[in-house]
Amino acid sequence: MSTTGPVLVIGSGLLGGSVGLALSIGGVPVHLRDTSPSARALARDLGAGALVDDGEGGPDAPAPTLVVVAVPPDVTADVVAQALREHPDAVVTDVASVKAVLLSELRAMAVAGTLTEADLARYVGSHPMAGRERSGAAAADADLFSARPWVVVPHATSRPDAVARVRALAIDVGAVPLQMGADEHDDAVALVSHVPQVLASLVAARLVPAADGALALAGQGLRDVTRIAASDPRLWAAILVGNAGPVRDQLALVRDDLAQLVEALDGAAQHGPLTPGAMAATSDVVRRGNVGVARVPGKHGGARRTYAEVTVLVPDAPGELGRLFVTVGELGVNIEDVAVEHATQHRVGMLTLSVLPEVATLLTDGLDARGWRVVAA
Amino acid sequence: MSTTGPVLVIGSGLLGGSVGLALSIGGVPVHLRDTSPSARALARDLGAGALVDDGEGGPDAPAPTLVVVAVPPDVTADVVAQALREHPDAVVTDVASVKAVLLSELRAMAVAGTLTEADLARYVGSHPMAGRERSGAAAADADLFSARPWVVVPHATSRPDAVARVRALAIDVGAVPLQMGADEHDDAVALVSHVPQVLASLVAARLVPAADGALALAGQGLRDVTRIAASDPRLWAAILVGNAGPVRDQLALVRDDLAQLVEALDGAAQHGPLTPGAMAATSDVVRRGNVGVARVPGKHGGARRTYAEVTVLVPDAPGELGRLFVTVGELGVNIEDVAVEHATQHRVGMLTLSVLPEVATLLTDGLDARGWRVVAA
Repeated sequence: MSTTGPVLVIGSGLLGGSVGLALSIGGVPVHLRDTSPSARALARDLGAGALVDDGEGGPDAPAPTLVVVAVPPDVTADVVAQALREHPDAVVTDVASVKAVLLSELRAMAVAGTLTEADLARYVGSHPMAGRERSGAAAADADLFSARPWVVVPHATSRPDAVARVRALAIDVGAVPLQMGADEHDDAVALVSHVPQVLASLVAARLVPAADGALALAGQGLRDVTRIAASDPRLWAAILVGNAGPVRDQLALVRDDLAQLVEALDGAAQHGPLTPGAMAATSDVVRRGNVGVARVPGKHGGARRTYAEVTVLVPDAPGELGRLFVTVGELGVNIEDVAVEHATQHRVGMLTLSVLPEVATLLTDGLDARGWRVVAA
Repeated sequence: MSTTGPVLVIGSGLLGGSVGLALSIGGVPVHLRDTSPSARALARDLGAGALVDDGEGGPDAPAPTLVVVAVPPDVTADVVAQALREHPDAVVTDVASVKAVLLSELRAMAVAGTLTEADLARYVGSHPMAGRERSGAAAADADLFSARPWVVVPHATSRPDAVARVRALAIDVGAVPLQMGADEHDDAVALVSHVPQVLASLVAARLVPAADGALALAGQGLRDVTRIAASDPRLWAAILVGNAGPVRDQLALVRDDLAQLVEALDGAAQHGPLTPGAMAATSDVVRRGNVGVARVPGKHGGARRTYAEVTVLVPDAPGELGRLFVTVGELGVNIEDVAVEHATQHRVGMLTLSVLPEVATLLTDGLDARGWRVVAA
């Protein structure tokens, strides 16, 4: 590991615990601090690091060279500032998912004199793009950051060695460091994370009063669009409000698109499907969506839609998927993506395999020849 | 098969071709008609049925007892009416994805006297909930309807034997017949299919002007929400406009929710995260989404969220998925769902297996013991 310890992790939840685990496994001395005695004890027992004295009688910690602040968003700025004051030789980073508000709070402290410019220079923000449905140290995992983007967010006066140190941390926990400014970061996550969350939630909210009969017609499309609607309301309220400006700007544009579409559909509802403008307005929305979705990076950064899809009927019994993938392995075909389409009332599954187009026929013929029922190729 | 032929399929595209294939394989005599000589020839060559004389000198078809109209939505009413007149002893159904507008067109013909009440009584609508990205007879498949819902849509004066006949057709092609009225059907598909399509398209449309750096932060959530945004604009414009009333009503509610949220976020953007009402408005949207998504049926009609998830790191090489699923099979664990989480820049995949909660520990320990890296259980 390029990170030379000791590292102090403040906050032993999912992210802090996972950072502690990953660094500890890599041989870096990690110390943990958490205001919750049970949380820090759990993190220690899981191997995320040793406890330090925070007034409750643990051993003294050696002076850290890096402090990772992994506490709730609303207290992050204060904890970062305190860490910068307490550890005058350490680089300090945090893992909050919104960066501009946090940075302006720290700048305000520098202006107010409660934080020196020299202190502020040792701060570099982070946003590991990794998470789980569950939270807390119990959900912590050394592999949580594996191959995920880790956004490193320097500010105007961040010291270059501090930036390098935080990049090294990202690499040491198995993540892929990307660098951007706070505003650029917040605009980006509004677009790729916060707006999809809100609209998935709004689509799902429409299902609350729906008839059971209507839900019986649900297909994979609805399941995909609403999957992330199962997210934690309190966490997401904090994220959305913390990134209020960029999220508001994007959602306002969606609201305007929606208002136009509703107007066009109202015309069609009142004067019939051939009402001038109705077809144009609806097809335009879908067409623009085509262009946008083509930009979403798939596996290895390639566009998902360059893959061919092969759909196979799979009996719903233990081992059947194994038999199928063994066949796929024998054919030497690499699977780029897998999706299960549920058969709502039959005990059979439909598995869609995404593969490079040039091997789609090989896969289809190979599966056919071995008795699998290939539905779509 | 309970369907006794002969069956006439008018329109030999994806749906018509697939119905013809499924019935032909079942031993039912099927005849095909299509205004496109090449389309009907292709469907015949694929085994979807025999051609009949439509003025271009094929053999005469025996009188059909069932006619399946599978032509584009905008001409379906006329073709259904013509089929009812031409085949006075046949039950006639169609496969259009919107039913109320179609039914009102047929009723208007009965009022105008171009269709008798007796003719109308032999008509029962259908909507097989099956589709593909690709269209045309070339994409037709005998298994297209396997285990999918097939909505049977009788009207006030449909003859009971005609309804029974269409239900039998659904069963014969492997589908699961569900019965509802035209309005009930159109409201249902607006909610579970048309609204999700529009919002997936609108989220994807926001990505058109996005910076590449922003898209590099895209995760599985964005991929899931926008997957169906790749749909065909012309087809979807016809569907949305054809179901304009119900879609307008639902989208107007989403627009209003969105307007409220934008207002709350605007307050937070101007006066800070702790602005009264901002947290409440945002958490309320996510909370309502939680309730709605819990109603989405998963496999076998069960709610998806009753499953436990086990995430495994899988080296991105041929055969690795096979090795994994063989192990899963050896453990006797049945997989309820599979999701691949892409590692954007590393050649490693994260596979999330959904299993019944009571076997999650067995699976996790079993995979651990065999050297797989289990990320999350």
